[in-house]
Amino acid sequence: MKQRDAHKAQGRAGQGRAGMGSVRTLVVLIAMEAEAAPLLEDLKLVEGQETPWPAALPFKHYAGSVQGADVHVVVLGKDPTFGVDCVGTQAAAMATMAAITAFKPDLVLNAGTAGGFKGGGCAVGEVFVGSSTAFHDRRIALPGFDVYGQCLLPCHPSDALADHVKAKRGIISTGNSLDCPGGDVKTIVEDNGACIKEMEAASIAWTCSLFKVPFVAIKSITDIVDGDKPTHEEFMANLFAASKAIQVTTAKAIKFLVNRNVSEL
Amino acid sequence: MKQRDAHKAQGRAGQGRAGMGSVRTLVVLIAMEAEAAPLLEDLKLVEGQETPWPAALPFKHYAGSVQGADVHVVVLGKDPTFGVDCVGTQAAAMATMAAITAFKPDLVLNAGTAGGFKGGGCAVGEVFVGSSTAFHDRRIALPGFDVYGQCLLPCHPSDALADHVKAKRGIISTGNSLDCPGGDVKTIVEDNGACIKEMEAASIAWTCSLFKVPFVAIKSITDIVDGDKPTHEEFMANLFAASKAIQVTTAKAIKFLVNRNVSEL
Repeated sequence: MKQRDAHKAQGRAGQGRAGMGSVRTLVVLIAMEAEAAPLLEDLKLVEGQETPWPAALPFKHYAGSVQGADVHVVVLGKDPTFGVDCVGTQAAAMATMAAITAFKPDLVLNAGTAGGFKGGGCAVGEVFVGSSTAFHDRRIALPGFDVYGQCLLPCHPSDALADHVKAKRGIISTGNSLDCPGGDVKTIVEDNGACIKEMEAASIAWTCSLFKVPFVAIKSITDIVDGDKPTHEEFMANLFAASKAIQVTTAKAIKFLVNRNVSEL
Repeated sequence: MKQRDAHKAQGRAGQGRAGMGSVRTLVVLIAMEAEAAPLLEDLKLVEGQETPWPAALPFKHYAGSVQGADVHVVVLGKDPTFGVDCVGTQAAAMATMAAITAFKPDLVLNAGTAGGFKGGGCAVGEVFVGSSTAFHDRRIALPGFDVYGQCLLPCHPSDALADHVKAKRGIISTGNSLDCPGGDVKTIVEDNGACIKEMEAASIAWTCSLFKVPFVAIKSITDIVDGDKPTHEEFMANLFAASKAIQVTTAKAIKFLVNRNVSEL
């Protein structure tokens, strides 16, 4: 019921700026440098000389022209203290806010790796285009706050994109942990109806909904959450291959999205 | 061990701009409007006519002069779709980024309500000044990412503040859920060494560490996490009283902090 109500409430936000025109400026948000590197090379995107946000922020910016449209890839960058990629929802929300403010994109695409549920039809190496996003680690049992915490938002309609890149559709569930204890499985599968689990999409989607910027997501499956291997081992073993897979699909997706009317994605 | 290592790694970030001078501009971040209302009235702070950040963001801004210093209270505001306060770490990180960019504060203070562990010496109505902050819902079992996820950061030294407002000291643990299942209890108490649980502080502290702005926190206990009452019931029953308690202490804290050298807090 939660899910249905949230979908209803979210009708507007998810529609974004549909009908406003074509995608002349595209922001592509990618959490990890390892995930982004093959794509940057493929599309010949170069790092911006000046950061279009406060220099204290770790986010990195790569830009270039793809079929005449402006494409900005934003990577979360390294934490200055801990030295690892700033994965997760806090940095993702901030980077989305910074990128939308700086580039005023017609569309935001989040591309990256994810865990998949074999019970939801996922296999390692498969690619999904998100149908909706939700959080599974914001459990707030107070009236109104429960659906805010879940934050189930439909992605911008993108069936044509999924067809074009030969991806399945599925609901993406977001949380800040790599592991997935039983309580999270229940929230992801039963409450959110999701088959894909990762660490940024719902946060980026929520920020886009505030700014009324259409949002789409592409996720490549690196590990099976309900399988028999520990996520962190399977993730590391498949990260390189999955990053290559997401690069091929994301490059194809970007070429499909640019210059296309946002009502025809 | 995690905790000790993180503390060591964080020596610099937590020190912020110590020694830079006195607190002439103070940002006070408060998550919920109910928590902020008594303080705004007490200090006669008025809502800003123009938002100093993109109008799409829900954050509210109240400002005024306290003992000649500029005090900016930032409240997370209402989610435009779900209609409730934008509690939690995503909005908190974004609001901190927006407030630091707009106001360039000498110090950021996070004030609000929290759950406390009676095993850690907390009782309802008590007030704590944070000694450190950490997350308990960012479990990432990959080398380097584990301590990034935990993100244990010392608050700016603030023993004099704690003495002045007659508050205890304690580590604050942050997560996006109001409930606290067994796994979270273990992370909060054993891994983070915390006795206070809430939903924003570590996110605000991390954002402040990026910008090298000193950060302090004051939390008033609304409910006992390891008690026998459900958190959501106890939270609602005590929210009003705790908001009054945090108002009295926060007003006193603000008057202590403004114009004081940041190395003498």
